[in-house]
Amino acid sequence: MSAWVLPDHIADVLPSEARHIEELRRELLDTARGYGYELVMPPLLEHLESLLTGTGEALDLQTFKLVDQLSGRMMGLRADSTPQVARIDAHLLNRQGVTRLCYCGPVLHTRPNRPHATREPLQFGAEIYGHAGLEADLEALLLALDCLKATGTGELTVDMADARIVRSLLAGVMVDSSVLVRVHAALADKDSSELAALTKDFPVAAREGLLALVSLYGDAKVLDEAEKSLPPSNALRDALANLRWLASHLEGCKVSFDLADLRGYAYYTGARFAIYVPGASDALVRGGRYDEVGAVFGRNRPAVGFSLDVKELVAVAGKRPLKAVIRAPWPDGKPDAAELRSAIAQLRAQGETVVCMLPGHESEVDEFHYDRELARDGSRWVVRVI
Amino acid sequence: MSAWVLPDHIADVLPSEARHIEELRRELLDTARGYGYELVMPPLLEHLESLLTGTGEALDLQTFKLVDQLSGRMMGLRADSTPQVARIDAHLLNRQGVTRLCYCGPVLHTRPNRPHATREPLQFGAEIYGHAGLEADLEALLLALDCLKATGTGELTVDMADARIVRSLLAGVMVDSSVLVRVHAALADKDSSELAALTKDFPVAAREGLLALVSLYGDAKVLDEAEKSLPPSNALRDALANLRWLASHLEGCKVSFDLADLRGYAYYTGARFAIYVPGASDALVRGGRYDEVGAVFGRNRPAVGFSLDVKELVAVAGKRPLKAVIRAPWPDGKPDAAELRSAIAQLRAQGETVVCMLPGHESEVDEFHYDRELARDGSRWVVRVI
Repeated sequence: MSAWVLPDHIADVLPSEARHIEELRRELLDTARGYGYELVMPPLLEHLESLLTGTGEALDLQTFKLVDQLSGRMMGLRADSTPQVARIDAHLLNRQGVTRLCYCGPVLHTRPNRPHATREPLQFGAEIYGHAGLEADLEALLLALDCLKATGTGELTVDMADARIVRSLLAGVMVDSSVLVRVHAALADKDSSELAALTKDFPVAAREGLLALVSLYGDAKVLDEAEKSLPPSNALRDALANLRWLASHLEGCKVSFDLADLRGYAYYTGARFAIYVPGASDALVRGGRYDEVGAVFGRNRPAVGFSLDVKELVAVAGKRPLKAVIRAPWPDGKPDAAELRSAIAQLRAQGETVVCMLPGHESEVDEFHYDRELARDGSRWVVRVI
Repeated sequence: MSAWVLPDHIADVLPSEARHIEELRRELLDTARGYGYELVMPPLLEHLESLLTGTGEALDLQTFKLVDQLSGRMMGLRADSTPQVARIDAHLLNRQGVTRLCYCGPVLHTRPNRPHATREPLQFGAEIYGHAGLEADLEALLLALDCLKATGTGELTVDMADARIVRSLLAGVMVDSSVLVRVHAALADKDSSELAALTKDFPVAAREGLLALVSLYGDAKVLDEAEKSLPPSNALRDALANLRWLASHLEGCKVSFDLADLRGYAYYTGARFAIYVPGASDALVRGGRYDEVGAVFGRNRPAVGFSLDVKELVAVAGKRPLKAVIRAPWPDGKPDAAELRSAIAQLRAQGETVVCMLPGHESEVDEFHYDRELARDGSRWVVRVI
């Protein structure tokens, strides 16, 4: 096999896409900064138990493992930055009040999440710690929407759910964890017959509730139906009221509900959201409340956040034209080389791209669009339209 | 051991440093773009033979290895992006003319390069392919200097060498590769007695040349001395002429020469440079010509480039003040919540950071410096100095 063939689901990002990703990266980080989210950069490598404690089996299978030559201990390459940022909030910052953090960096997956997914997503995310009230959920959701609006995607659809609904239906039901995984999968696939088979020995209320969930998706009427058809509980009442309140604050996007939706990570504990845009096969953003995530690091703070893959976003974000470039002769050998050099430096300081034509390469056609050139006009160097 | 203890030489980057690194990252990429260098993003993971072919043993020892679960093949985590970018030039772009590429991303090292070095540098670099003339060397060097000037480091010192000098002295000498490694180390350490012992069976001209190299460091006089004291050859003459020409084009920095300097990677083939700044214990930037780097990918193009670690740069770059922030009340419950929300959105669109005080957290002191607040003035929301 040739030395330049990359592993499956691993790719180089070439100039036009890389430029676009870099622009999106800056827009996302600047939007988060506008809300007061401070940037942190957790490491790519951590001790395995620090990366995986409390995050569930799915993340374990997604995580590449390595031996640390310095200590002989197992390390993992992060497959998700959320638990790392929770660790930073819990231990390094250790602030009493509200803390808002954001991040943007690569994560690595042993296996692709979907048939055409990359194994090296560029994960951007924002997290808010220290506020148990629903306002934090709302702020995270509004920030996620603003991030996507800043990048010029098409019409946004927010799909909402709440982790407490399924949990309240299963409360008190003795069930093996392997069965639970299959129940969750059947709910995600809306597979009623599989769900009926799996829950045949469950208490009647739990069983009927879970089966009813499968059809509880669509517009706001779903919440009314859930109130009628699901066994009443405080958790259910809270969850539905929260979803209503959050939905009432959303403008300029479609809102839908899918109360059986359990996809994503194991750590959600309250309201959850997924944001869809035209052209993307799956949700672009996933987020929600995960109050327990810092517990394994000794500090159980309320937490809400979301994340997205910038490499997925670039495929659906508005395209931006490449800024045109100025061509300049190579200064050496020119009688006024110093003047030319200073003209080039000035243009670059103004934010222009000025490419100096290397001797012998003046007639090469490259990827840039040159619309102007630096040329002699009497005793001065001026920018002239080509 | 606690779950939150990180491996040695691995660290979280917390908000104030992360913000600074992000600012430097943008300045470096924008400076390179100003010269016409196109951004690429090679992957963190590649097949091992693709990462390591032709790069030498030092990089092999620095590279973390993994098994790809999808293929069963060995993969490596990149310890240096330069060979990856050469691969992109050789295979993916495959342009006939000059190609200028830059990159900025993490690399991982199994062991730290120096006692206090991180094992996760953030490597920024720029490379120019397809021009064998010295103008490409000059452009790379000037770009490296402009990158450092843009980031506000102190006075810059460029230290120059040429890989052809040692190579010309050793031309035709039969020597075991393990001895060669020790000769290189003795030259780097300027250890004359070790060098004398290692070269005692070498031809007289090679031996005396190598021993003379040890004292050939300092200002431009070094080049004249080298001409007198080293055995003459075309390669030596070319190397010294190239160094003179490059040095004659440098302004606003100190220039020194160290003809025995062989540090860095094995792949240099011509003029080399290292840039030092006050406060950094080692060179901040290393670069030079490495014409053969693309050969293993089937396309032997002339190449010059340089790289630096943004995490090292941040320690010596000029500090920038944190932009002050505007405080705003939480809109819900206010009679004119919609007006307040729109005032907040407008300020954010203008590039301001506006932090909404979550209910119950109004009196918390956090890390931000609030110098203004959004407040009611009659029927309008206005920004008021605190």
